[in-house]
Amino acid sequence: MTLQTHARFVTLEGGEGAGKSTVLSALRGFLLARGHEVVSTREPGGTPLAEQIRGLLLDTHHEPPAPETELLLMFAARAQHVREVILPALQRGAWVISDRFTDSSYAYQGAGRGMDAAFIAALEQRVVGITPAMTLLLDIGVAHGRERTRGRDLAPGGSGPDRIEREQDHFFERVREGFLARAAAEPRRIRVVDATQSVDAVAAEAVAHLQALAVA
Amino acid sequence: MTLQTHARFVTLEGGEGAGKSTVLSALRGFLLARGHEVVSTREPGGTPLAEQIRGLLLDTHHEPPAPETELLLMFAARAQHVREVILPALQRGAWVISDRFTDSSYAYQGAGRGMDAAFIAALEQRVVGITPAMTLLLDIGVAHGRERTRGRDLAPGGSGPDRIEREQDHFFERVREGFLARAAAEPRRIRVVDATQSVDAVAAEAVAHLQALAVA
Repeated sequence: MTLQTHARFVTLEGGEGAGKSTVLSALRGFLLARGHEVVSTREPGGTPLAEQIRGLLLDTHHEPPAPETELLLMFAARAQHVREVILPALQRGAWVISDRFTDSSYAYQGAGRGMDAAFIAALEQRVVGITPAMTLLLDIGVAHGRERTRGRDLAPGGSGPDRIEREQDHFFERVREGFLARAAAEPRRIRVVDATQSVDAVAAEAVAHLQALAVA
Repeated sequence: MTLQTHARFVTLEGGEGAGKSTVLSALRGFLLARGHEVVSTREPGGTPLAEQIRGLLLDTHHEPPAPETELLLMFAARAQHVREVILPALQRGAWVISDRFTDSSYAYQGAGRGMDAAFIAALEQRVVGITPAMTLLLDIGVAHGRERTRGRDLAPGGSGPDRIEREQDHFFERVREGFLARAAAEPRRIRVVDATQSVDAVAAEAVAHLQALAVA
């Protein structure tokens, strides 16, 4: 492996409805209160070009991308995000918290769509090159998570499910298993947080993990 | 190599101003006159989604893609193009002529931008999987080709040079050398046509190559 681990780089992973946005705000607040610069970002996206690629990936109106196309678009956006946003921020001493990163490609395009993990690893090494010091996997059952997003999608101003969110439950079951398999393989980096707890409890547990990392 | 060669798949390669559009029309006319179905297409692009990716690649207004991003966007578009257009056409017995294909990635992103040829080969095998029976490389000196496109760009209704066309001459010299090196390595597939000849002479030579292929 030629991946470089960055001490102040933290990522959040998990299925829909796991509470990633709330946790991201809590982690950000914790670091800001201690005087750190924090860049919070998301994938796919994070730069103007990468957000345009996100638009192509999640759009429900035109021809759906083949699994290979989806995988390469994800990594094209990530290559740009790493070079334009993540590395410059880390190099100037900021913390970076990303809502999703490479683990999502292993879970969604790998476990979910059946793309070969060795090929995903080759892409990771060639065009990403970095890995977070800590990844929080917010784990929740598929039906439970879907119930939470349903409320969000039906809220006034909600945009409705995107192309990937419209997949069937068996797809999301494979994605969840993919995430848990990665956590089992890399227990030091990936911490599983029980996201069926109250949002406040999930956020508190996430902050405790970050605190342990920040003082280490 | 696990690439599958398709007998009725022909690609045109070369720098700007080499006359690919004219040659494509001549090849198409030759095949249509013999009663064949012909799908003429282009890269990057060829499907609605791939054309949107093309827009991101050639746009001159927003943030330029990193070389890695450019390479993956090219292959994302190609993955879609192969699955949605090229393979279905070949499978129903049509001829397919594409203005650019994988050789352009070796020349532009490989020789031009310095991306590793072995990584490009891995992408080709994993997400493309097919190779043309014949590739016509329309070869012309950089200054000579640029002179021809200048006339086109200044014509009424011309759109001006795109992001890649705006590169410096030394970039296009590397691209040309990259194409010629591929032709030297695969002389049976890649036929070099002297594109400094008159457009009619270039088209006639290209048609002669196609005729030899079609009766073989």
